[in-house]
Amino acid sequence: MPHILLTGFEPFNNETTNPAWEVVKLFEGKKILQTHTVHIAQLPCEFGAANTMLADLLTRIPAEIVVCVGQAGGRVDISVERVAINIDDARIPDNAGAQPIDQSIIEDGPAAYFSTLPIKAIVKNLRDNGIPASVSQTAGTYVCNHVFYGLMHYANTHPHILRAGFVHIPYLPEQAAAHPGAASMALEQMENALRCLLETSISQAKDIKLGAGATH
Amino acid sequence: MPHILLTGFEPFNNETTNPAWEVVKLFEGKKILQTHTVHIAQLPCEFGAANTMLADLLTRIPAEIVVCVGQAGGRVDISVERVAINIDDARIPDNAGAQPIDQSIIEDGPAAYFSTLPIKAIVKNLRDNGIPASVSQTAGTYVCNHVFYGLMHYANTHPHILRAGFVHIPYLPEQAAAHPGAASMALEQMENALRCLLETSISQAKDIKLGAGATH
Amino acid sequence: MPHILLTGFEPFNNETTNPAWEVVKLFEGKKILQTHTVHIAQLPCEFGAANTMLADLLTRIPAEIVVCVGQAGGRVDISVERVAINIDDARIPDNAGAQPIDQSIIEDGPAAYFSTLPIKAIVKNLRDNGIPASVSQTAGTYVCNHVFYGLMHYANTHPHILRAGFVHIPYLPEQAAAHPGAASMALEQMENALRCLLETSISQAKDIKLGAGATH
Amino acid sequence: MPHILLTGFEPFNNETTNPAWEVVKLFEGKKILQTHTVHIAQLPCEFGAANTMLADLLTRIPAEIVVCVGQAGGRVDISVERVAINIDDARIPDNAGAQPIDQSIIEDGPAAYFSTLPIKAIVKNLRDNGIPASVSQTAGTYVCNHVFYGLMHYANTHPHILRAGFVHIPYLPEQAAAHPGAASMALEQMENALRCLLETSISQAKDIKLGAGATH
Repeated sequence: MPHILLTGFEPFNNETTNPAWEVVKLFEGKKILQTHTVHIAQLPCEFGAANTMLADLLTRIPAEIVVCVGQAGGRVDISVERVAINIDDARIPDNAGAQPIDQSIIEDGPAAYFSTLPIKAIVKNLRDNGIPASVSQTAGTYVCNHVFYGLMHYANTHPHILRAGFVHIPYLPEQAAAHPGAASMALEQMENALRCLLETSISQAKDIKLGAGATH
Repeated sequence: MPHILLTGFEPFNNETTNPAWEVVKLFEGKKILQTHTVHIAQLPCEFGAANTMLADLLTRIPAEIVVCVGQAGGRVDISVERVAINIDDARIPDNAGAQPIDQSIIEDGPAAYFSTLPIKAIVKNLRDNGIPASVSQTAGTYVCNHVFYGLMHYANTHPHILRAGFVHIPYLPEQAAAHPGAASMALEQMENALRCLLETSISQAKDIKLGAGATH
Repeated sequence: MPHILLTGFEPFNNETTNPAWEVVKLFEGKKILQTHTVHIAQLPCEFGAANTMLADLLTRIPAEIVVCVGQAGGRVDISVERVAINIDDARIPDNAGAQPIDQSIIEDGPAAYFSTLPIKAIVKNLRDNGIPASVSQTAGTYVCNHVFYGLMHYANTHPHILRAGFVHIPYLPEQAAAHPGAASMALEQMENALRCLLETSISQAKDIKLGAGATH
Repeated sequence: MPHILLTGFEPFNNETTNPAWEVVKLFEGKKILQTHTVHIAQLPCEFGAANTMLADLLTRIPAEIVVCVGQAGGRVDISVERVAINIDDARIPDNAGAQPIDQSIIEDGPAAYFSTLPIKAIVKNLRDNGIPASVSQTAGTYVCNHVFYGLMHYANTHPHILRAGFVHIPYLPEQAAAHPGAASMALEQMENALRCLLETSISQAKDIKLGAGATH
């Protein structure tokens, strides 16, 4: 019986909720495509501690697929991240008050890792299901990218993890109601999106060719 | 028994659906606050013809409250329009192929009319209900503004219309899925928004003071 | 010898400079097309007081053409305003600490006035001269719109004012350097833009037909 | 006598000019800080061919500092790129008609390289000189990123290149005049920006700590 690990974050930056956790917790114990069992976890929004907890989870749960989910307040769609970079550069303090600037996440680690999710197939399937989605060329330089990089660094030396990656999701409507000008997405649609993403990650042996680049 | 007239538009600009009509049609025959009966109608996306049909509807239906709804592809929230201006300036042809530039909607009509909906109370109630909303200072210069102006011009000389106005809504998710970069809103939330807007329009005798301006 | 009145504002919202004043002051005593003499004035960024000073200037200076210029931090180009609306709704306090919400500028005044500048010809000539420009459908609800409305209300009953209107300009580069993410324009280009705008206002007897509308 | 290599691109995507080349050509033979001689070159906007020409230039010119400059139409400021990634994903065809999707730039090359320019010191100095600037977390996936990656891959094995990197610049005003809604920057300011960037690259032995990250 194959396993999936799905993580979300605790709220940060003065929010009282985090859409990543709200949607991830709906998948506790769920089966995807009747074959894969989902395990969930909430990570702290803290540099260092988040990756320590993630490494501990990865040690205990023999997951074939690992997807970390984070809030991207202001983005309009499900954005599937392409690449994690080896740098912390915090615009705001994390939940423990740390604000690293230009520090490597893994000293002497490679500059970046690419997601091993079938990111193009995911975007295509999401859109085909009426869910706004895109490939993102940057996961930022905050705790989300930190965890994404930590995940890919671990997966790089643990081949039982077949696919791993990160996805950013918009504000929930009730958050956007307090941030005039910000886009949002309904929780139910986020849930459908995540299920579609996991199903595609299971069934798509090889990613498809689909243009989703940026000129700059 | 008081009446409400609610209008949406047919699809335009190569869309096959129009969120305004999709949400408006859910209100056919509905009662709001158990007192007001909703009548609905679909307007053509055509300069002139839309206002002709609207005038005909207003003659036949003794509505106390009239709200016209239109699609604003790219906007992120429920935007309650403040003011209609007496000008047509079409960036794209309408559904009949007309593309007026700098023509008055009503010759010798006033330059503008303000909405008589309680726009600030509506925005506050929407936000309090977790629905992203804002006051918009411009309804554009296309068919939406054309109908908004036509409505207010009619209401101005028909005092049985107690409140009238226009609201723009975002793309539906399935539309935004075909417009990467565009925000969207779930139909169910649009429905909740419209119900809240109508309830507020009935119950709010006088608008509230709530800052919702723009520096430019 | 015909006269032109050109106004800018003092700095506001924690800025130490106002691009509108920086560019306007370059025109002191200048002749446009060798026929029109420019008079300049700096208006306070205060509801009420700005229009009081403007009315005083208009009484003293027999201007055929009046153009008020204001800063629109965040906008990318020279935006020529189409319409002034009869409402103050201040998102932030003005320089005297006043923050009116939903107050009429002129009690019982019309809801709006259209600019009497040849706004389409101005936009075309600016673009033809390599200067980014557009028609704006809203001047906001702050002191800029307040002055624009006050100007048009005055001009409406003073036919010696042949043309009057308002133009918003971006941040100067040195301001944008302190507002990451904001666009800017060089002072020299703003100067060229204003000269082109005044020349067009003099020479263009009737505005041209040029699509510059917005669907919403 | 130390050398600097500065490159720009030919026009692409239906433009007749490229601001990168317009500004780079102003530096032909110039001395920076009276010590470093600038060599310039125009690269084709073609995957593969651009890097072939760049490698040839790098072989012939013993440059200590190499900066490639590219157009980022729509961006508002001088954006100093942080990281080049090993992927081509072309949204539009290049000037030779090629449109690679998800191809590695260097097979078996590392996923990314970080710029070795003092990017934070550059951004600080630009802002201190009144020039809008920021650190960018993605150079896209088109020819600009392709050249940036090619440059860093070469520099990685050629230690005589002390500093190398990429900078994106906005449209020139005359380009933005044809792209309503797009920001621009005057050529003279781009020239000042590039000189400041080169001076900082020479004099700043070690980069400074300056927060310039993104939460996502």
